[in-house]
Amino acid sequence: MKISELSRRTGVPVASIKYFLRQGLLPAGRATAATLAEYGEEHAQRLRLIKALTTLGGLSIAATREVLGAVDQADRSEGALGAVSYALPVPVAAQRAAGHDEEDAGAEAGAGAGAAATEVAELLAALDWQVPGTSPHVQGLTTALEALCRLDARYAPGELVAYARLAEQVARLDLERAAGLDDPVALAERAVIVFAICAPVFEMLRRLAQEDQVRRSVAADTSAVRG
Amino acid sequence: MKISELSRRTGVPVASIKYFLRQGLLPAGRATAATLAEYGEEHAQRLRLIKALTTLGGLSIAATREVLGAVDQADRSEGALGAVSYALPVPVAAQRAAGHDEEDAGAEAGAGAGAAATEVAELLAALDWQVPGTSPHVQGLTTALEALCRLDARYAPGELVAYARLAEQVARLDLERAAGLDDPVALAERAVIVFAICAPVFEMLRRLAQEDQVRRSVAADTSAVRG
Repeated sequence: MKISELSRRTGVPVASIKYFLRQGLLPAGRATAATLAEYGEEHAQRLRLIKALTTLGGLSIAATREVLGAVDQADRSEGALGAVSYALPVPVAAQRAAGHDEEDAGAEAGAGAGAAATEVAELLAALDWQVPGTSPHVQGLTTALEALCRLDARYAPGELVAYARLAEQVARLDLERAAGLDDPVALAERAVIVFAICAPVFEMLRRLAQEDQVRRSVAADTSAVRG
Repeated sequence: MKISELSRRTGVPVASIKYFLRQGLLPAGRATAATLAEYGEEHAQRLRLIKALTTLGGLSIAATREVLGAVDQADRSEGALGAVSYALPVPVAAQRAAGHDEEDAGAEAGAGAGAAATEVAELLAALDWQVPGTSPHVQGLTTALEALCRLDARYAPGELVAYARLAEQVARLDLERAAGLDDPVALAERAVIVFAICAPVFEMLRRLAQEDQVRRSVAADTSAVRG
């Protein structure tokens, strides 16, 4: 297909396609004339993934190039999933919390950091989760726990484990959603969707559930007063 | 205490305190001279909440004023929780997904929007959650489901209910963390922390659990090949 057709099929403007070609994110088409090239189904699929990574995932061109490289090299589908998971940024609020930390520098900050790192290591051991200490999610969790420590709102012992057990069940549903996709590119695309959109979906469900429970407790209190 | 002491106690720079005073977010201190004022414990507490809302919550000054107004008017602690929950922005990725939608305008977009709204209404009915249709979280969920529909990655029937049941359990833990706080200001502060930091904590736990489960499945496959 021509570049105009590729644009129509994927919803990516021709100017953006040309930019991705120049940046080496998209392989060149088969040249049919000095200024014409023919593109195939693999270009359309790759473009959809680039679009998902840059728009939904909010990745930079450099980060997108890294993910695509990892997806290409992945000899098994789990590699594609891991590459996307590691590349997608940690939620914004955790970064804000980290920025917040810098404000209150000093010895206290150092102590909080060490305590949080120990807390995470102990949690992973208690859960028997096989995750390397170099995982960006270990770092993200440590940063968030440091912020909570600074705000005097640490989790009580056992509370974090209770949350983690529920996270385990959510992750099982996530992986079921990606099951049956054997092609690394299709799987990577699905992974971006799961991380970038399904995480906010869960957050909305959680807030709706909070609303519901607060409303119920208010209703119960009111009827108790009336009764 | 003097403004310098208030600054030291809360970690908020004097210039920021003066800005919050001018913006009406912080009530004036008791004037002790033409250019001196005395501040109390209630100022320190309010400042901590302003700091949490603007830094961790990422709220604008106008949005912060709204939350503080709601917290002040809340005759019961649940009101404070609800005010913060409604004021805090919907996760960024959901907004990005919404922006993404605009790219692919047309009849298809309209159809997706209607279908997603119906899906959310049916979900809430199935769960028997008491949430008004005007809740920003209903809108946030609808937007995210529209994006999934556009990406051809809709939840299968029942899948969303399974996620919602887990969200319900997470929300129960969240509310337990806020229990025992009767003062609306303290509760509002805790609510910001729960929404702004504990949500990323859960997201990190979910990604760590995914990592663990992927690693286990790879290990199981490898040993099956070997055996």
